Amino acid sequence: MGKVLEKEAYGLAAKDESAVLSPFRFSRRETGEKDVRFKVLFCGICHTDLSMAKNLWGLTTYPLVPGHEIVGVITEVGAKVTKFNAGDKVGVGYMSSSCRSCESCSDDQENYCPKMILTSGAKYYDDTMTHGGYSDHMVCEEDYIIRIPENLPLDAAAPLLCAGVTVYSPMKYHGLDKPGMHIGVVGLGGLGHVAVKFAKAMGTKVTVISTSESKKDEAINRLGADAFLVSRDQEQMKDAMETMDGIIDTVSATHPLLPLLGLLRYKGKLVMVGAPEKPLELPVMPLIFGRKMVVGSMIGGIKETQEMMDLAGKHNITADIELISVDYVNTAMERLEKADVRYRFVIDVANTLEPAP
Amino acid sequence: MGKVLEKEAYGLAAKDESAVLSPFRFSRRETGEKDVRFKVLFCGICHTDLSMAKNLWGLTTYPLVPGHEIVGVITEVGAKVTKFNAGDKVGVGYMSSSCRSCESCSDDQENYCPKMILTSGAKYYDDTMTHGGYSDHMVCEEDYIIRIPENLPLDAAAPLLCAGVTVYSPMKYHGLDKPGMHIGVVGLGGLGHVAVKFAKAMGTKVTVISTSESKKDEAINRLGADAFLVSRDQEQMKDAMETMDGIIDTVSATHPLLPLLGLLRYKGKLVMVGAPEKPLELPVMPLIFGRKMVVGSMIGGIKETQEMMDLAGKHNITADIELISVDYVNTAMERLEKADVRYRFVIDVANTLEPAP
Repeated sequence: MGKVLEKEAYGLAAKDESAVLSPFRFSRRETGEKDVRFKVLFCGICHTDLSMAKNLWGLTTYPLVPGHEIVGVITEVGAKVTKFNAGDKVGVGYMSSSCRSCESCSDDQENYCPKMILTSGAKYYDDTMTHGGYSDHMVCEEDYIIRIPENLPLDAAAPLLCAGVTVYSPMKYHGLDKPGMHIGVVGLGGLGHVAVKFAKAMGTKVTVISTSESKKDEAINRLGADAFLVSRDQEQMKDAMETMDGIIDTVSATHPLLPLLGLLRYKGKLVMVGAPEKPLELPVMPLIFGRKMVVGSMIGGIKETQEMMDLAGKHNITADIELISVDYVNTAMERLEKADVRYRFVIDVANTLEPAP
Repeated sequence: MGKVLEKEAYGLAAKDESAVLSPFRFSRRETGEKDVRFKVLFCGICHTDLSMAKNLWGLTTYPLVPGHEIVGVITEVGAKVTKFNAGDKVGVGYMSSSCRSCESCSDDQENYCPKMILTSGAKYYDDTMTHGGYSDHMVCEEDYIIRIPENLPLDAAAPLLCAGVTVYSPMKYHGLDKPGMHIGVVGLGGLGHVAVKFAKAMGTKVTVISTSESKKDEAINRLGADAFLVSRDQEQMKDAMETMDGIIDTVSATHPLLPLLGLLRYKGKLVMVGAPEKPLELPVMPLIFGRKMVVGSMIGGIKETQEMMDLAGKHNITADIELISVDYVNTAMERLEKADVRYRFVIDVANTLEPAP
C-alpha cells in the first residue's frame, strides 16, 4: 500500500480479557486514493463485540476497539473514489477489505473470502490492526462502504450493517424470500427481531419460536410476526410440524435442533446464524427423511448488504434500539451479556465520545 | 383398489426381534390393471433389512419379509400396463407406491412423499403388509418399476436399486456431479463403494475417507478412487482441508463431523446417507464460516433411479457383491452386522429358495 501516513484517532478499547472498555488513542492511515474517511455518528453493539472483547474465541489482539455496525458522514474521499462524496451518509459493517480475486469475491460473497479483513481486531495490509467504530472516525476502502438510504434514521439503521445482512443474506441465498413461504425465526434478539421485519417485507408468513411466552405480544403486535410458538409447548409444536420452508436460528446458546427440524417441511432449511460455542446435537434421521438441511451463514457480501439496506429504506425497516452514551457502554455490555436489551444498543458516538486523554 | 384376489407366495421372514429369518408362506395380490408381476431372481441385503428385522427403530411389524434391492423377470402385466412386457428384466427398490399428487411426487421425488409406501414392512392400500424381495415373486405398480440395462449382470445390479440411487440422488440434486469437482466418500461399504464408482463416472475427483489404511489399495486400485485419506492422520487431513465440494457420508455409526466439515470448501455440502441412531455432534462455527451445509438424503425418486440405472449401464457400474444362497442368509446377516462383507451380499433367490413348507 506504499508509505502510510497517519492521522490521530481516539475511541474506546478493551485492553485485556476483563473486557472493560476505556479511552484509547491510536492512529488511522491517511485517506488513500480509493479510501473514504468518515466521522462516526453511531455504532451498534453486537454480541460479537462482547465475545471478542473477552477473547472468548482466542482470536483477540489487545487493545481492541470494537464496533462493526458503524454509520457516519463522509469527511474526505480519496482521489480515485468514484462512488461517494463528502457529506454522504454511509456505513461500514464487519468487513473492510477482501482479496477481490477468489471464488467468494467473484461471487460477490466477499464475506467468505479467506483473506477477508474484519473491521475490528484484524491485521490490515499495512500490518496495523483494524480498529472498529467505538471511535471518532473511520477510514475504509470505498468498495466496502454502504450507502444509507436518506429516509432511515442513522442510529437505528446502524445495526442493519451486521444484524440486518446476517439474516437477509441466507434468506436470499437459500430462496427463503418468496411470498407465501413460511419462515420461522428462533430467538428474538438483535438478529431475530430484524429477521422478522425482513421476512415480512419479503411477503412471507413469519412465526417466532421462543422458549417462553414473554415476547409473544411484542413479536406479533410490535414486530408484525404472524404467529408465535413456545418451543416447550409440545402441543403447539406438534401442530406446527412440517409447516416451515426455512428457519433462521439466531440463538447462540446451546439448544436442541430436533424440534426445529421437525417444524421444517420437505427440503426445509435450518439456517444457523447464531454461533454456539459448543457443538449442538444433530439428529440425522430427520435430515434424511425430508431432505432437510442445516446450513451456516455469516454476515453478507457488499452487494447484498447494499440490497438489504435499500430494501430497508423501501420498507422503513430499522432495528429497535436503545441509544446510549459512551459512558454507558460498559453497563450496556453487562446488560447485553444477560440479554437485557430490546433489541440493540447503539452508541451515540458523535455526541458523547470525548477525546481520550 | 376394489376387490383383491390373491396368489400364493413364499419366502423368508423375521418373526420376532431375534431377527432370525425362516421360511414363510403368504399371499400377494392378483396382478392389477397397472401392476407388474415378476419372478424374483436376485435380492440384495441392505443394512436396513437387518435394522428392520431387529426392530431397531421400533417400526417393524412381524412377520417381516425383508428385501428392497430386487431384480427379476416379468411374468405378467396388467391390462393397462404400457411400459413393460413379460420377459423384461426389471427391479424394484425401497419404494412401491406414493400419493402421486403431493409436492414431492410432483417434483419426481416420490421418496419424500408423506404417503410413500415401502416395499417391505409397510401397509399397502388394501391394508395388507408389503413383503419384500426375500421371496419367490413380487407384484408392483408399473410406475415404481425400474428397467435394468441389458448389459448389466442382474445379481450385481440389484444393490443399485437402493445403495446406488441413495448416493446418486444427492450427488445430482446438490450439483455434486460436475466434472472437476472433488468429492469425498466416507465409509467404504455397500453405499460407499458405489458412491466412488458413480462419482468417477460423473468425472469428479474422488477421495475415500476412512478410519484406517486397510482399504486404501482396494479403494484406489480396484474401485478407481483418486486418493485415500486416513481420517485419524492429522497431517493428511490438514493437507486436504477445504478442498472438497461435497462429501457423501455413508457411515451409520456415531462419528465426528468436525474433520469432515474441515475438508469442505466454501459452500461445500456434507451429505448424510448413513443413518446414525444417536445424534451426532455438530460444530456450528465451521458451517457459519464457509456457508457450509449438512444435508440428509434418502434413496431417490423413480425418475432418478432409472437415470442412475441407465448411467450404470453406460459405464458398466455394478456393486461388488458376494452372491449367497438362501440357506446362508442368517449367516450373512451376522457378518453384515460386523461389516464383514465386500461390499454387498446378494441372495441368489431363484436358484436357492425352496417353497416354504
